[in-house]
Amino acid sequence: MLKNMQFTEKPEENELKERLKAAREKLSAQQMLLKEHKIPVLVLVEGWGTAGKGHLIGQIIRNIDPRFFKVAPMDRPTEEERRKPFLCRYFTKIPEAGKFMFLDSGWMDEITGSVLQGEMDQKTYEQRIGSIRRFERQLTDNGYLLLKFFCHISEKEQKKRILALEEDIDTRWRVGKDDKWQNKNYDKCVEVFGRYMEDTNAPSAPWYVIDAKSAKWAELQALETLTQGIDVALQNQSLAVPLLQNVFPLEKMPKLAEIQLDKSIGEEEYKEELNTLQKKLSDLHNRLYRKKVPVVIVYEGWDAAGKGGNIKRITEALDPRGFEVHPIASPEPHEKARHYLWRFWTRLPKTGHIAIFDRSWYGRVMVERLEGFCSENDWKRAYNEMNEFEKELHDWGAVIIKFWVQIDKETQLTRFTDRQNTPEKQWKITDEDWRNREKWDAYEVAVDEMIKKTSTTYAPWHILESTDKKYARIKALKIVIEELERALK
Amino acid sequence: MLKNMQFTEKPEENELKERLKAAREKLSAQQMLLKEHKIPVLVLVEGWGTAGKGHLIGQIIRNIDPRFFKVAPMDRPTEEERRKPFLCRYFTKIPEAGKFMFLDSGWMDEITGSVLQGEMDQKTYEQRIGSIRRFERQLTDNGYLLLKFFCHISEKEQKKRILALEEDIDTRWRVGKDDKWQNKNYDKCVEVFGRYMEDTNAPSAPWYVIDAKSAKWAELQALETLTQGIDVALQNQSLAVPLLQNVFPLEKMPKLAEIQLDKSIGEEEYKEELNTLQKKLSDLHNRLYRKKVPVVIVYEGWDAAGKGGNIKRITEALDPRGFEVHPIASPEPHEKARHYLWRFWTRLPKTGHIAIFDRSWYGRVMVERLEGFCSENDWKRAYNEMNEFEKELHDWGAVIIKFWVQIDKETQLTRFTDRQNTPEKQWKITDEDWRNREKWDAYEVAVDEMIKKTSTTYAPWHILESTDKKYARIKALKIVIEELERALK
Repeated sequence: MLKNMQFTEKPEENELKERLKAAREKLSAQQMLLKEHKIPVLVLVEGWGTAGKGHLIGQIIRNIDPRFFKVAPMDRPTEEERRKPFLCRYFTKIPEAGKFMFLDSGWMDEITGSVLQGEMDQKTYEQRIGSIRRFERQLTDNGYLLLKFFCHISEKEQKKRILALEEDIDTRWRVGKDDKWQNKNYDKCVEVFGRYMEDTNAPSAPWYVIDAKSAKWAELQALETLTQGIDVALQNQSLAVPLLQNVFPLEKMPKLAEIQLDKSIGEEEYKEELNTLQKKLSDLHNRLYRKKVPVVIVYEGWDAAGKGGNIKRITEALDPRGFEVHPIASPEPHEKARHYLWRFWTRLPKTGHIAIFDRSWYGRVMVERLEGFCSENDWKRAYNEMNEFEKELHDWGAVIIKFWVQIDKETQLTRFTDRQNTPEKQWKITDEDWRNREKWDAYEVAVDEMIKKTSTTYAPWHILESTDKKYARIKALKIVIEELERALK
Repeated sequence: MLKNMQFTEKPEENELKERLKAAREKLSAQQMLLKEHKIPVLVLVEGWGTAGKGHLIGQIIRNIDPRFFKVAPMDRPTEEERRKPFLCRYFTKIPEAGKFMFLDSGWMDEITGSVLQGEMDQKTYEQRIGSIRRFERQLTDNGYLLLKFFCHISEKEQKKRILALEEDIDTRWRVGKDDKWQNKNYDKCVEVFGRYMEDTNAPSAPWYVIDAKSAKWAELQALETLTQGIDVALQNQSLAVPLLQNVFPLEKMPKLAEIQLDKSIGEEEYKEELNTLQKKLSDLHNRLYRKKVPVVIVYEGWDAAGKGGNIKRITEALDPRGFEVHPIASPEPHEKARHYLWRFWTRLPKTGHIAIFDRSWYGRVMVERLEGFCSENDWKRAYNEMNEFEKELHDWGAVIIKFWVQIDKETQLTRFTDRQNTPEKQWKITDEDWRNREKWDAYEVAVDEMIKKTSTTYAPWHILESTDKKYARIKALKIVIEELERALK
């Protein structure tokens, strides 16, 4: 893509000046419209070392109120960041609705850098490209405007700039080892950069290669592309996004109505099993930690199905320094202002740690679907998005265990009534629980669809029959142990 | 404090069992009361290596719903954390109102560890002790319940445990180099630990040394202390906290009414100066980055005084990768649920970076005071707390520049009216601005008091006369340059 790049010619000085003025004013005016329409804008600025990425961002943000933008310079991943899926540090930086985020280098630089240094094989490269395509599509599908700029300069120009920067002690630090390496291996870089751009050149998030030889001309190209992109986003906003077909292998699952709920366990047997299984899990936790395997456990289920007590029997066996339980309630304003998966990306465990989600991203296709908190298109698209999300976790090496805790409607009534009548349990029952109960049938339809569409082979649902809570706890422990053992083999 | 520690004798097995049961139930019941009374509880668990800190936390949290607690294991500071003030990684972890946070090792371990490794001189140690005392007092003054446990075991017991853990491959990783080092230098540790505990043994946050030879007995001591502490906190909640006298040297400042607002600058001179000063600032930014000096700039001032435009003239000269502007509006729910300084601790710059606050922590003694968002005691205490906060930043090596942007009441009216009548400026003027204007006189009293009480020699206020915005911009640039040059000398 870079090799035979034909750039528009730089306009005359006068024209350049006029167009710059117009573009700056336009961007300045657009910021309020973006805010009003709640469109988030992510601007990725990639390019050659010394091409002027930082300067370009500096020029663009002059036209935007500081309330509406952030700039994140992305250095090489830190030790801490390396213990998360590679997309994590990018996903967690996506802007809020109505605001800009400028990334100075990003996922392209990370991938092409690794390829050029010979640290990434072809297979991993292809996997990363797949992840990136899905990531970018998820952003644009969810209403993000994503602009990808590549600042281009010639080999000669780069060399000239490196020498100039090195002359001054105050700018010398700006020349990195990478910059020099690039210049020495310019042709190889052209090839790798070009291939990456072709591999990730999607219609909803195409690449814009900027002729960066002149700073002002570069600014104009960026500003005009950006403002045009915003215009299109403002017009398109209400258009539905096509639903993609599921491409992940699925396991066949029963409908809720088919689940036998007569399973139970005796008191004695329960105590013994609990003791044995918790000891085993405790040992496994040590080994997980040592082998740095991350674990994600999801609990979903009816109100009063016994999620809390079930989780407790798992966590009792774990070292508190190695796990975290994330109770998921309705999103706070700063969470609601971002992609719905953002608050889960920000809560992922480090390698070797366990994250337990008491309710999860599946709220998208249950409560958000049924209460109309998102559009039909949004929740229909979500099955695929959640499978993709879990695919990222799986590829990262995570063990993913998803539990649906099942009871019947009568059992729920008994437990609700018991909670209502027991003073120390009253905080557990709210009006909302009763309201949700009225929608049992609609929820059942939603849950059946969810289980059917998101039981991928790499992250299937497990049903916990929980009319006898003790039975469900033992079953959960057994499944967790089995899955961890498999991962540790 | 550790040397001649006399422990209560461990009770008989039966009594232990009964008291444990009672304490567990009590804690379980207290969690709802804490939530109701919005009391945050920070439990710091320090102690000898292999004393069972993790296990102890594991036992305590069994009695608490996962919605109400978090556990943070504090390892040695990462590279990233070392680029912030040392308290930062602790302050940012304080719990929300009504919730528990358990820290597995914390600021004691960090300090005593450095002392023992010979990495900290006496002067720094004393400075850290001062910081810690103020930090702990700020927490308890602001309604936090802070419990500090030290898990104690004898030299012999520690040796036994280290050997036992090392025998098993799955637990071997739990024995750190530090643990062995401690055991070999047990007496020296006793001395350093003991001194630290004496130095930080405040009435509002005393140390509890736990006899940790028996895990169950350790649990009982911790649980009984914790539940008693909660009882006291629940009773004390409404009591006012005494106001401390200011101990920091102050500069003499004028009252707002005394400020001459007739200053102005000609258009030609402005352009020239702006150009020269911005170039100078741009160079300084490079040097700051190289020398890793952090900079915090605060803007406060009347609505429409020209803060935004003033900030812009500063940021135009800066590399966007090295600064961030933080516009401060009213706090979000997760921010309101914590100490009011939390949202500023979480926004501090890294070393070498610049953070510009468009409004700041001083909201505590302006809008929060005047609108009654906090109690009288709260805002009166805040002057000292903010001086202490800035002292931390100063000791860390930060340049702190605070601007009050001043205009008179008539100028504000002219600008409000102009905003109202100019379509593209209308978003800048709200009903709230008009309401605030009505309280001008009360604000003036508050601002005078703020400037008087928080103009410390290490972080004085600078007045920007802004009836002529251009004059104010040039003055701000000059002050920033002067302060940076002084720091870079």
